[in-house]
This record gives sequence, structure tokens and C-alpha cells, in this order.
Amino acid sequence: MAQPGAESIWLWIGALGMAIGTLYFIGRGWSVSDVEQQLFYIATIFITTTAFASYLAMATGFGLTEVVVGDRTLDIYWARYADWLVTTPLLLFDLALLAGADRNTIATLVGVDVFMIVTGLVAALTPDPAFRIVWWGISSGALLFLLYILVGSLTMQARERPGDVGNLFQTLRNLTVALWVLYPVVWILGTESTLQLVPLYWETAAFMVLDLSAKVGFGFLLLRSRNVLEQATRRPAEAPA
Amino acid sequence: MAQPGAESIWLWIGALGMAIGTLYFIGRGWSVSDVEQQLFYIATIFITTTAFASYLAMATGFGLTEVVVGDRTLDIYWARYADWLVTTPLLLFDLALLAGADRNTIATLVGVDVFMIVTGLVAALTPDPAFRIVWWGISSGALLFLLYILVGSLTMQARERPGDVGNLFQTLRNLTVALWVLYPVVWILGTESTLQLVPLYWETAAFMVLDLSAKVGFGFLLLRSRNVLEQATRRPAEAPA
Amino acid sequence: MAQPGAESIWLWIGALGMAIGTLYFIGRGWSVSDVEQQLFYIATIFITTTAFASYLAMATGFGLTEVVVGDRTLDIYWARYADWLVTTPLLLFDLALLAGADRNTIATLVGVDVFMIVTGLVAALTPDPAFRIVWWGISSGALLFLLYILVGSLTMQARERPGDVGNLFQTLRNLTVALWVLYPVVWILGTESTLQLVPLYWETAAFMVLDLSAKVGFGFLLLRSRNVLEQATRRPAEAPA
Repeated sequence: MAQPGAESIWLWIGALGMAIGTLYFIGRGWSVSDVEQQLFYIATIFITTTAFASYLAMATGFGLTEVVVGDRTLDIYWARYADWLVTTPLLLFDLALLAGADRNTIATLVGVDVFMIVTGLVAALTPDPAFRIVWWGISSGALLFLLYILVGSLTMQARERPGDVGNLFQTLRNLTVALWVLYPVVWILGTESTLQLVPLYWETAAFMVLDLSAKVGFGFLLLRSRNVLEQATRRPAEAPA
Repeated sequence: MAQPGAESIWLWIGALGMAIGTLYFIGRGWSVSDVEQQLFYIATIFITTTAFASYLAMATGFGLTEVVVGDRTLDIYWARYADWLVTTPLLLFDLALLAGADRNTIATLVGVDVFMIVTGLVAALTPDPAFRIVWWGISSGALLFLLYILVGSLTMQARERPGDVGNLFQTLRNLTVALWVLYPVVWILGTESTLQLVPLYWETAAFMVLDLSAKVGFGFLLLRSRNVLEQATRRPAEAPA
Repeated sequence: MAQPGAESIWLWIGALGMAIGTLYFIGRGWSVSDVEQQLFYIATIFITTTAFASYLAMATGFGLTEVVVGDRTLDIYWARYADWLVTTPLLLFDLALLAGADRNTIATLVGVDVFMIVTGLVAALTPDPAFRIVWWGISSGALLFLLYILVGSLTMQARERPGDVGNLFQTLRNLTVALWVLYPVVWILGTESTLQLVPLYWETAAFMVLDLSAKVGFGFLLLRSRNVLEQATRRPAEAPA
């Protein structure tokens, strides 16, 4: 079985960061009794717990496989995709909850997201260099459509929300858009594509920084203010006239 | 890695057909603003998008593996089952939505369907020729039970619906029953069983025609009449006395 | 492909037991017309049907793989985990339904449960003996947290239920706690760990007895009394004053 090389340092740091984030979110959420607010904590804690397990699996060599592409043997950390398959829908769920999105928007977001991760995994495991780029393009296209929904109809729905909730949504939406577009960029510059401009060591570091920012950073900003979460979960009828 | 042979022509045609269907359904659904009607479009668009990705994966050789059965090495397109695992529950969901089915019926349909696809995959990947037939029988049994629900309790629930909705349900139900029973027949006549009466080339063509009919054909008939979908999503209270 | 040894006798008995349980539950549930009560039958029938397919897959050698750990080659029945991934959330769903649990408790139970099964599978497939124990510890930690919710907040919610429902919940909860804690014990004593105190033959027998008790036994106790299920599904407003 393939074993992680020097890049494993970043995987251990990633696992540690996710563990710290998880413990911090559990601590903050422990005393929250409102069932609507709890939902934000539950989703966010599952995000970092899943990412922790994925990073530990990669660091210990379980989440790693080899794919022969042309005359090269690539080290592919497939466990990333297992992580993302669970965590990216949950991140979108957090955003949708904040925006007060309707059922159809949530279903579309989650469906496009799962399509994006699965086609991304196909890209990572495909042996033919040209088809790797084709699948990368399909997955990136799904990402662009996803961000279009975030910036379009989800933002429109978030505008109806009380002031601070709308602002928090905008902050988290901008963070998500800014970070998520970097994933396919790191992928195409890294060892997964035929370009291989960035070596595995730095690619792993880049993904780790992105993952920590998009998950622990995201959760920190989301759960920072109880006041805003209270406004976000208040039913319309209870809003001050 | 196993590579597709001459049958790949059918896989490319399948991918193209699913892509055309997807674009057509997106075009038709773009201006639909009623959230209940949108659900039909969203489900149907995900069906053909998933099938498109699956056909592309098979055509490019990713969705193909080899299974040694006795002294033969079979080419097994496992990506079909990944496709079906997503698309057949969505097709049933479309039908259930049209029939106005209750939650238990939907849960039972989806559960039996997933059981049918997973045991079908076990049949396709099992090396022992006799056990392949046993698993095929279990999966086909699940299919028969599924069709029994479609023709039985789902049809009973659809009878309560306004005239055109009931008629559309009957058309789509008949199409589904007629096409779905052919899948295990093609399987048992084709290369997956020990009979091998139909070569891989024609088996792939048959599955492609079935898939296009059961997905793009189904979606075309379902989304053809906005008028009927309007009736299907009208709440009882709004119905004319 | 690895083939089952003498332990296959227990796998065939397991498959037979699950089949008998399934048929019995179908028979009992056939005439139930209340949609809330039906849900208990549907969930329980899917539990034993899934376990039947898993046991058949293991008995016929499909659900078995080999993992090289140090200088030993372990026979790992991975199909157990596919079974548990579906059946344990459904068992918790039955318990939660009986306790009248809220949405957050159900979401947390299912999330922690899936985490427990997936990390358990990682433990079973990891080649490094020390990391096998680490993953076993993570999975067992998730189990303890799960049981803590069962005994804590779920039991608190069940106390609000009418007398017989509360008693049935307690019986099934005690059964579940008592049986589920034995799974990691069998695992660590059996062939999966480096201890290997219990040979595969007896380990397979132990898991079979546990599975039949926790699924068919559980279902038998749950569905035994129509009277209690009627009370469990009666809406608060209908309760006698």
C-alpha cells in the first residue's frame, strides 16, 4: 500500500486543526437549548469531525492510493473526496439555513454539490491524462453553477432576513466563494493534472490551509455571535413590528 | 485497466442523448416559478445529468471492470449501477409526486429500489456462475415487488387525482413497468449471465435504448404539458368545486 | 478471491434467521393500516432484509476480502459494515420514533452512528496493527457517545410518553445498550485486532448471535404488541384526559 511521504506533516496539522475546531464548537454549543440554533452547531460539528477523520486517515496512509497516468505513478489522496462528499453539503446547508432558503434551492445545491465531488473523484482516479482534464472541467462547471446559485437566488432569499443575519450570510458566502474556487486551481496546478507545476508537498499544504479556512474558519465566523443566530432562527411572527 | 471495445459507440450515443435531454429539460424548466412544479424539473434534470456522467464514464473506460467467472473474463460496466442507484429512486419520486403518494409509500419504493440495485450490482460482480443467478433472482424479485406497488397502492392513490394527472400517471407508469421489466431480461440474456446469448455489443445497445427511453423519454412525457403539472401541484383547497 | 472457511455455517444460519424474521414481520405488518404504525413495520422489515442480503453475501464469499497485517493475512468480512451502515440508523430510528424524539436528536444519532460504522470499517481495513487499534478506539468512542444520548436525552424524551410506550422503550433501549457494547469487545478479542484471542470461527458465531438478537429479537419485542404501538402513534390531542 502507498505510504504518505514528507507531506504527511501537513496532514497531521490538518487533523490537529480539525480536532481543535471540533472541541471548540462542542464547547460553544453545549449550553445552547434552542432547537433551531442547535442545528447550526450540529451541522458544523459534523463538518469538522468528518474532516478530522479524513485527515487522520490520510496521515496514517489509509486514504491514499496510486493511479498510473502515462509513465507516472500519482499518489492520490482519495479520502479527501469522501470528506468533501459529506462536508460540502453540510457547509451549503449551514449557508442555506442562514439565508432561510426554500426546499428546492437546498435540494438543487446539494444535488449539484454531490455531482461536483463525484465527478472530481472520477477526475482524480482516471488514468488517461486528457480525460482527467475533461472530468476536471465537468466538476469545475458544477462548481461554477453552485457559486452562481449562492450569489444569485440564495443571496436574494437572504436579503429578506434581518440586518445582521444578512451581513453574516454575505461574509460567509464571500469566504466560501473565494475559497472554493481555489480548489480546482490547486488541483490543476498540482500533481493531479499533467501540468504538475506544484509538487505534492506544497499541494497538500495548500489543500490543508483551504480546508481549515473553509471549515474551521467558516464555523468560527458562523458560531461567533449567538445574537445573530438568535435573529436567524426567530420565526417571522416573533420579529419586532 | 479494461478498455471499452466496439460497444463504446453506443456509450457515446447514450452520453450524447442524455446531454441533449438535460439541456432540453433545463430550457423548458428555466421560466417555471411555481415551487411545486419546479420539483418535477429538478428531479428530472438530475436524472439525465447523472446518466450523462455515467455514460461518459463508461465510454471513457473508467466505469468498466473485469470479473473472472469460471474460465471467462467478463467486462462489467459497474458505472451503470452507480447511475441507477441515483436515477431510479428519482424516477420513482417523480411518479410518486404525480400520484400524490404518502410518505410510507415513497419510503418503501425507495428502500426496495435501492435494495434491487445493490443486489443487482452484487450479481454483476460475483465470480460464481450459480450465485450470479441467485443474486439476479433476488434483485428481480425486488423489481417485481416494486412494480406491484406501482400498479397497486400507487395507482390507487393516483385515482384520487384530477383527470389529466391520473392519465399522465398511467402513461408514465405503463412506460416504466414495460421498460423496467426488460432490464433483468437483457441482463440474463447478455454477457452477465452464463447464457451469454446476446454479445456485449448488442447488450450495450439494448441498455442504451432502455436508458434513453426510461429517462429522456419519461422526462419528455412528464414535462410536456405545463397544464397537467399545474393540476398535479394544485392544492386540494384550490380545486374548483 | 478469498473464500469462507468452516465459519460459513454461522453465516448461513444468520441468513436463514434474518429471512425468517423478515417473513414473520411482513406477516404481522400486512394488515396494519395506520400510517404511523406502518412506519415501525417498514423500518424493521428493511433492517432484517438488509441483514439477510449481507449474510448471504458473506456466506457466498462475496462480502469477504483479505487484509495483510504484519506477517498475517486476515479474512475481513467487509459486508458486515455495509449491513450496519443501513441497519443501525434504522434501529436508532425505531427507538427515536418510540421515544417521540425531536429532529435534532435523530440527526445527531444518525450522524454519530454513520461516523461509528465508517471509522469501524477503516479500523477493519487498515494494515498497520497500531492504527487498527486507534481507529477501533475512535469508533468505540462514537459508540459510547451514542449510548450516552440513548440513555440521556432520548430517555428523557421517552418519559413524556404514555406508560406502556415508555416501558417498551426502556426494554428495547436496554437490549440495544447491552448488545451494542459487545460488538467492539468481540472485534478486539477476535481476529480483527492483534490480540486474536478468539478464532474466526467463534468470532463469526458471536457476531451472528449478536446480529440476530439486536435485529430479529429487537423487532420481535417492538412489534409484539399492537396495543403499545397504537399508544406510541396516538397524537397528544387524542390522548385520554
